[in-house]
Amino acid sequence: MGKNKIEVCFSPALYPYFENPEAIVVVSDILRASSAICTAFINGADRIIPVGTIEEAREFKSRGYMVAAERDGIVKDFADFGNSPFNFTPERVNNKHIVYSTTNGTQAVQLASSGYKVIIGAFLNLQALCDYAISESRDIIVLCAGWKHKFNLEDTLFAGAMTDLLIESGKFETICDSALASRDLWNLARHDLIGYVDKSAQRNRLKKNGLDDVIEYCLSLDLSRIIPVLEKDYLVKLSGFE
Amino acid sequence: MGKNKIEVCFSPALYPYFENPEAIVVVSDILRASSAICTAFINGADRIIPVGTIEEAREFKSRGYMVAAERDGIVKDFADFGNSPFNFTPERVNNKHIVYSTTNGTQAVQLASSGYKVIIGAFLNLQALCDYAISESRDIIVLCAGWKHKFNLEDTLFAGAMTDLLIESGKFETICDSALASRDLWNLARHDLIGYVDKSAQRNRLKKNGLDDVIEYCLSLDLSRIIPVLEKDYLVKLSGFE
Repeated sequence: MGKNKIEVCFSPALYPYFENPEAIVVVSDILRASSAICTAFINGADRIIPVGTIEEAREFKSRGYMVAAERDGIVKDFADFGNSPFNFTPERVNNKHIVYSTTNGTQAVQLASSGYKVIIGAFLNLQALCDYAISESRDIIVLCAGWKHKFNLEDTLFAGAMTDLLIESGKFETICDSALASRDLWNLARHDLIGYVDKSAQRNRLKKNGLDDVIEYCLSLDLSRIIPVLEKDYLVKLSGFE
Repeated sequence: MGKNKIEVCFSPALYPYFENPEAIVVVSDILRASSAICTAFINGADRIIPVGTIEEAREFKSRGYMVAAERDGIVKDFADFGNSPFNFTPERVNNKHIVYSTTNGTQAVQLASSGYKVIIGAFLNLQALCDYAISESRDIIVLCAGWKHKFNLEDTLFAGAMTDLLIESGKFETICDSALASRDLWNLARHDLIGYVDKSAQRNRLKKNGLDDVIEYCLSLDLSRIIPVLEKDYLVKLSGFE
């Protein structure tokens, strides 16, 4: 049997050129949406509803949902807490449905929903994602949420880590230049991931807003085997896999 | 005085998020359009008219222009020769106006024309481009033509080389993750550029079509100080700079 393919899409704006209804799409928004979503499930959340706008988040709040929503580092007045992974404590999220407001991440999830399956990828569940990809024997597209449609380093490094592990497994191959470049950047950065990400634009944005306390955590590998998966328009824990 | 900024845009599809009417835009399509266009001017061409479609190329031919046009490695029957830089010999192009048909490159040039100035970048004129950028004291956007809107390695390496030289000059800075990633890839590849590009998708496409004889040439640095510049809808040699 031939190998499966891995491709990397650096921005939601490029996704139309990658779209494949047969592929599993791994959506990655390392700082901070995909890391926060993984954390919520690690801590027992039952369902995460990603929404793109503050207006949608407010509407959910008015219907009684628990809502995580902030912009530029300030928690929205109607929200229960902000977007940091550290807010998703077991005390708050266990067995709950939570609305998570994220501009870049939500757009990426919506686009990806044309694929066979949408899963949420972070460094926190990297090896589990790769094991799942190998077990499913399907082509993989890593969709980097990026920053306002632009390429970003941290999502690319995650994509490179997945590319590296999947190609090393012998079950995947690639002729995608984005995947090759991501893999090379990952191999350049992996021995000092925090130092490397330190130069990225998003790192500086978070630092400016005092939100950079999450970076070390978001760059931690394999804290969990949980894979969030899209069901209709919300995320649940992928069952039968851990 | 503050430093100027360099940014790198990996695809024409991402250009709307970079657009800046005050910036000089360097359009790069290393394999092969920007390398061929530089070569044409090195060999004395007077004007290059980039066109996006075969139909436009045919229309220009019927009006008496010399036309370079091919698709998938086959020279179009109405054309004078194909798209390889090696076709632009002094005997053919000296003092001539030439129509050059290129899908990715032409689209990139058209988009870039919203900038302050559009110049054509290749490894062949790398140092001259950087000297010009420094002399103009304006922000720079390197627009990679890519391949059918996707990221490609060879244009990225060129962008990385420009980023590296401009930042090393002390006159430029960047907070653009694409520029940082390009620069790191360039520094990884620069000591064996041909070996590195060997793994790229475009390299394989050219090889399959027997067009890979140009790769070594297109990856040669600083063969010329000539900079092609867009004037209205055609390219000429930038005057007053060599």
